[in-house]
Amino acid sequence: MDIGQESLVAHAQWAGKLDTVPKMDVATHHDLAVAYTPGVAQPCLAIADDPSSIYEYTMKGNTVAVVTDGSAVLGLGNIGAAAALPVMEGKCVLFKRFGGVNAVPLCLDTQDVDELVQAVVQLAPAFGGVNLEDISAPRCFEIEARLKELLDIPVFHDDQHGTAIVVLAASISALRITNRTPQDCRVVVNGSGSAGIAIARLLVSYGFGHVVLCDSSGIVHSGSERLNDAKRQMLEITNPEDASGTLADALVGADLFIGVSAPGVVTQDMVRSMADDPIVFALANPVPEIYPDLAREAGARVVGTGRSDFANQINNVIAFPGVFKGALEGRVGAITDEMKLAAACALADLVGDDAACDYVIPDPFDPRCAEAVAQAVRSLGGAS
Amino acid sequence: MDIGQESLVAHAQWAGKLDTVPKMDVATHHDLAVAYTPGVAQPCLAIADDPSSIYEYTMKGNTVAVVTDGSAVLGLGNIGAAAALPVMEGKCVLFKRFGGVNAVPLCLDTQDVDELVQAVVQLAPAFGGVNLEDISAPRCFEIEARLKELLDIPVFHDDQHGTAIVVLAASISALRITNRTPQDCRVVVNGSGSAGIAIARLLVSYGFGHVVLCDSSGIVHSGSERLNDAKRQMLEITNPEDASGTLADALVGADLFIGVSAPGVVTQDMVRSMADDPIVFALANPVPEIYPDLAREAGARVVGTGRSDFANQINNVIAFPGVFKGALEGRVGAITDEMKLAAACALADLVGDDAACDYVIPDPFDPRCAEAVAQAVRSLGGAS
Repeated sequence: MDIGQESLVAHAQWAGKLDTVPKMDVATHHDLAVAYTPGVAQPCLAIADDPSSIYEYTMKGNTVAVVTDGSAVLGLGNIGAAAALPVMEGKCVLFKRFGGVNAVPLCLDTQDVDELVQAVVQLAPAFGGVNLEDISAPRCFEIEARLKELLDIPVFHDDQHGTAIVVLAASISALRITNRTPQDCRVVVNGSGSAGIAIARLLVSYGFGHVVLCDSSGIVHSGSERLNDAKRQMLEITNPEDASGTLADALVGADLFIGVSAPGVVTQDMVRSMADDPIVFALANPVPEIYPDLAREAGARVVGTGRSDFANQINNVIAFPGVFKGALEGRVGAITDEMKLAAACALADLVGDDAACDYVIPDPFDPRCAEAVAQAVRSLGGAS
Repeated sequence: MDIGQESLVAHAQWAGKLDTVPKMDVATHHDLAVAYTPGVAQPCLAIADDPSSIYEYTMKGNTVAVVTDGSAVLGLGNIGAAAALPVMEGKCVLFKRFGGVNAVPLCLDTQDVDELVQAVVQLAPAFGGVNLEDISAPRCFEIEARLKELLDIPVFHDDQHGTAIVVLAASISALRITNRTPQDCRVVVNGSGSAGIAIARLLVSYGFGHVVLCDSSGIVHSGSERLNDAKRQMLEITNPEDASGTLADALVGADLFIGVSAPGVVTQDMVRSMADDPIVFALANPVPEIYPDLAREAGARVVGTGRSDFANQINNVIAFPGVFKGALEGRVGAITDEMKLAAACALADLVGDDAACDYVIPDPFDPRCAEAVAQAVRSLGGAS
């Protein structure tokens, strides 16, 4: 039975991956009067009197809304809100399992940007944070930006920033092994959706001096046919020579390839055209841009994928639970670039001197990850 | 320490009354691949292909959204969405404790009817039912009616229908003890908000022949000053003589008083003016319209309140968990009047021949309640 069939059977057995569970016994009339009426009027009045006390008396301070519109689910595309529910439930499972954070899946039946923003703003009172998930680019950029403006709780589009944190962490370790500096490292990011743009942006923030972004038409440059606002903004910080050409052109002499694109788009010849000891992160899932054995055969020194059956699995699960754990514990109002950079550095530090070609990023089950990331976020909370 | 203070301290210790808990272990890479990517793509595709399979593969089929706008919270009034969260969490606790149903508190930061309707419609994909809570009248009538029209999952405003079911159940038992028939029973319902209107409506549906509704200005009649659409509609099925006057006028010769109004508005003289062996359900909480000892001293034969420290506690918790348990198990598209009547009869049947002046309604902790109500709802599911 392949993993998909096994998963289908398991999902039918679970009939939902999440339960809501009371924290207290309700065994007597007295219990009922304390947890519900008439006693519950007192915390209600306390919150009405001092809105910040909601963090003291309710689940808000430890609960994240996992919100999607189903417009870009996994690699499946726009399958709609309802069909995205298994992914959102899974995400909530991981929030609890890896970060100790409560999470609620919310699949919104609209793909209108204004309506989505309004719905999330209206939903916010009961939640301490909003994890946006599987929302298509470029809509996701506007949605996140507007929500950050409107809400006083952290809003985090994991497909962008979770991915970017983990890719940066892996890149830091890989540079260390291959004796490169970010300033001199030539990076090609293939895929200019939510993940690609966020990765490129965070790498530049970290200090990478030469990043080129590609989309399915090739290098994103000032004359690209399919420029949108997001790509146009990226031209200000990437592709300094305003080069044009194909992905193959971009890869000639490149040090680091990061693919968040499509199966099989990188050939062995392309890898051979890269600089010596190149780094190849082929994250298309489940079929990567190039398989690790082929990449290594063509000379790649460090290879990472999104898959658990190869070394160097670049998986958001080492970041997002810790991001919200730290944000909630520190009652952080927003996840800043500084926090994302600190989180990536903290993950790279966990690898530290043990860094090797087949170990540039902690394993998803490394129990240190969530707290390391949380600590990075918390410690910068005062600046938010 | 009074119950309010005790509740405040308990709420601070709990810091949230609900946890979200994964149903499965995620201990290995394989577990991760089955519960999340890449395996989870399979149930997503199955749902995209056959939308009804969402009940098979997700938590939708056992999860209720508990939705408020904070406009009419307990007896506290319009304290807003955030301050209502302790009540909504409590409601979710009771859903699980008494009905085995998962429930998620959602406090919506808008009190605009159109926006509320839109938000709930957008939220619906992940939920198998919507329990509306603490939404002020008459807005609640329009909101519920529009949502029932727009959604294919059950929508139930508990302040209306849960209350109505339990009051009808208690009334059936009380009539039996006092040898009355519904046809000949003169009923006064004081309070024409959400609960009062729903109670009057359900009593008429059951066969009560003479129901008079009062508001704070007295008997609701065709010349009432504060008629709204809801009260105007009620005139078609209540107050057949179109009588006018005060609450005291209404009570002269009445058999059954049902108060969902304000503390202390019923005097002993009013009870004395009622028919022989009158029934008094004084449900204002925590201070009833008249205290049980005073009502009995003035001749009331059966007395009920909303409080657990007197006999005959008329408490929604014996109805709503079972309503949604039955609706979800039977995959019922809407909660019909027939289901509410059947649920009330089922609760009255649990009391059955044991009915007595101090036992007209099952105790909230009577373990038979949820299943009896669920069975009533399920059995009529085919008709929905």
